[in-house]
Amino acid sequence: MASSPRMEEKFAPAKRVAGQKQDVWSIVNEAAAASPVQPIGYNPPQFVLDAAKSALDRVECNQYSPTKGRPRLKKAIADAYSPFFGRKLDPESEVTITTGANEGMLSAFMGFIEPGDEVIIFEPFFDQYLSNIEMAGGTIKYVPLHPPEDGGTRTSSAANWSIDFTELEAAITPKTKMMVLNSPHNPVGKVFSKSELTRIGDLCLKHDILILSDEVYDRLYYVPFTRIGTLSPELAQITLTVGSAGKNFYCTGWRVGYPLQEAAAVGFEQADAHRFWDSSVREMEGKVARFCHVFDELRLPYSQPEGGYFVLANLAKVKLPDGYDFPEHVRHRPRDFRMAWFLIMELGVAAIPPSEFYTQAREKVAEDWMRFAVCKEDAVLETAKERLRGLRRYIEE
Amino acid sequence: MASSPRMEEKFAPAKRVAGQKQDVWSIVNEAAAASPVQPIGYNPPQFVLDAAKSALDRVECNQYSPTKGRPRLKKAIADAYSPFFGRKLDPESEVTITTGANEGMLSAFMGFIEPGDEVIIFEPFFDQYLSNIEMAGGTIKYVPLHPPEDGGTRTSSAANWSIDFTELEAAITPKTKMMVLNSPHNPVGKVFSKSELTRIGDLCLKHDILILSDEVYDRLYYVPFTRIGTLSPELAQITLTVGSAGKNFYCTGWRVGYPLQEAAAVGFEQADAHRFWDSSVREMEGKVARFCHVFDELRLPYSQPEGGYFVLANLAKVKLPDGYDFPEHVRHRPRDFRMAWFLIMELGVAAIPPSEFYTQAREKVAEDWMRFAVCKEDAVLETAKERLRGLRRYIEE
Ligand SMILES: Cc1ncc(COP(=O)(O)O)c(C=O)c1O
Ligand SMILES: Cc1ncc(COP(=O)(O)O)c(C=O)c1O
Repeated sequence: MASSPRMEEKFAPAKRVAGQKQDVWSIVNEAAAASPVQPIGYNPPQFVLDAAKSALDRVECNQYSPTKGRPRLKKAIADAYSPFFGRKLDPESEVTITTGANEGMLSAFMGFIEPGDEVIIFEPFFDQYLSNIEMAGGTIKYVPLHPPEDGGTRTSSAANWSIDFTELEAAITPKTKMMVLNSPHNPVGKVFSKSELTRIGDLCLKHDILILSDEVYDRLYYVPFTRIGTLSPELAQITLTVGSAGKNFYCTGWRVGYPLQEAAAVGFEQADAHRFWDSSVREMEGKVARFCHVFDELRLPYSQPEGGYFVLANLAKVKLPDGYDFPEHVRHRPRDFRMAWFLIMELGVAAIPPSEFYTQAREKVAEDWMRFAVCKEDAVLETAKERLRGLRRYIEE
Repeated sequence: MASSPRMEEKFAPAKRVAGQKQDVWSIVNEAAAASPVQPIGYNPPQFVLDAAKSALDRVECNQYSPTKGRPRLKKAIADAYSPFFGRKLDPESEVTITTGANEGMLSAFMGFIEPGDEVIIFEPFFDQYLSNIEMAGGTIKYVPLHPPEDGGTRTSSAANWSIDFTELEAAITPKTKMMVLNSPHNPVGKVFSKSELTRIGDLCLKHDILILSDEVYDRLYYVPFTRIGTLSPELAQITLTVGSAGKNFYCTGWRVGYPLQEAAAVGFEQADAHRFWDSSVREMEGKVARFCHVFDELRLPYSQPEGGYFVLANLAKVKLPDGYDFPEHVRHRPRDFRMAWFLIMELGVAAIPPSEFYTQAREKVAEDWMRFAVCKEDAVLETAKERLRGLRRYIEE
């Protein structure tokens, strides 16, 4: 828009948005678009698709809805989640609908964080948290999730990514207003144990810290799953729990457009009748196993997810060819960025570099790992495996 | 959530969101829900509905899209709007997709306004501007659109709501960063004339002020319509134009959920072939005429809209019954709020009190008026007219 130096100064972007680098999702999308092979996603279940179409046939579903969400969806969510909380949730005062978990979390930050307030997040983190917290003027304090020490040589449970509670407590100051949790975790696949959550909860209660619990993969766990907001009435009072119909029903692109809230409501209402939650857990767990075979074959270690549909594989043994021609915006990023570019362009496999989930100071922690999403049709997974076998010639044992 | 005084202090909402009163849309929705008669909206055109359904059948349309919008929609918009700008718009650098015009405007404020920057808006204004500007830390300067002096006695064109250019220039300070325009105007129905826009544009160029032009009703005008961004290359450089597929295709509830972007793209691509823009202008203009008959019958003056689908009628002559039992949150608002409540509860007609579009200092300017939306099926309009005839017994000539 602006052109002259005077105009560039006068029309400069606000500080809260200036200097953002291109995010990993855009880079991977761009590379995938340039790649010969198009990745295919996973479709929402038919009963939810049908509900969306019939919502489109109803006049009132196509027009503005109440800002806080359609009553039917709020009720469907309250009904679906009441059993977990052991009491009847009130759809009006305890449930609110946003366009995705991302907007829900942004709303929580904008609603509670004053400039200068501190927010604790675990690293690696889902990168959207950062811009959301910064938008509200918050200061971020990072606490590491420590990878298993033998992660480069041995495959083990994602449970082995661990919290150092001394580090966690040391990150708390009088300015700490909120702590963000994510379980099942993206990208690690860790499901925080009840005892970990109890210790975290105790700390938050002791220091008056709000908990924002990002539970978007709450229907995909392969070990017991605990919701921190259900541990005690005291914790319920200080916890905001965020879910995602987009994740729950494999329709992340809906970002609940309002007529689609009707379909999401049907999703929550009928999921049990369709045995949808169980079958999707079984299906995804099967997909994780199916997909990881290729890493076993290649003798590449990985972290076995306890939940979610992401697998972190350790590609330390894969050697990138010397002098490979990486584009400018990738060349100077950590090794996993270059690896992601290489995987897409040479093998046609899209994966996410986990250093995006780290601050610059610690981005090397994860640069040997790569995050693969298995929420794809089996045929697509088999194609991806076949392509990944092409890694063999780059692996040094 | 919070309960003890200590917790209430510690977990207080951030200033940017504290102390907001309930907005008029929620109040009217609530009253409408409580009313015996359910209002019915206007449906999107069938070819756009069909496009939405077939988008739901395509896997990739149900999943995350590029954050700045699906390429097909950006291209459809660039193609549809290039003729107005007399040059080829670049879909990548000149078009961006947001969830509704409202999020588009919020993004513009968050992107350009630093705390303390000033934003000029005309009063009456669409109330969402206020919270959006405040969220970005901006300070709002209001400049009045003056109603016609004989508005209480004579029906006339919405063109007669006028700008005092001395007042406008006096509102500009060195801190002024942005000016918000809205044409066709909600709620006034005024279409800013080319000469008005030229004078406004000159002022903005002279003082280095960004223009945010809210043109969501850009396909509904009954007099010549000018887009300020097209007046000169200099103005194009400082203007952000905001449109709304939700408004264009009568699907405000879609808030372009990503699969629905595909349907919106088809909308822009095929609207001309379906003669959709022309026929909807003719249709809405006919609806305005059809609906306003009842005001002619009742001898209530109104402002004839030059664009959009809103009619401002002047209800000064309607006397609210003494001692009518208004609920607490309405009783102490201006007369038009009470009138709106009365119309819904007694007659089953939903209308919006225009004082919501004013600051408190000037809310009385509009308290005799009421905003009616005519984007309804004719049968619904006829029912509304029949119900409005019930006003006769409250009118004093
Ligand atoms: C941990 C986590 N939180 C939030 C989100 C965003 O969810 P939504 O699509 O509902 O905004 C994602 C999406 O990948 C995620 O992985
Ligand atoms: C003047 C004006 N701007 C913006 C909007 C919001 O449009 P959208 O639904 O696309 O967010 C409206 C909706 O009524 C409006 O009247």
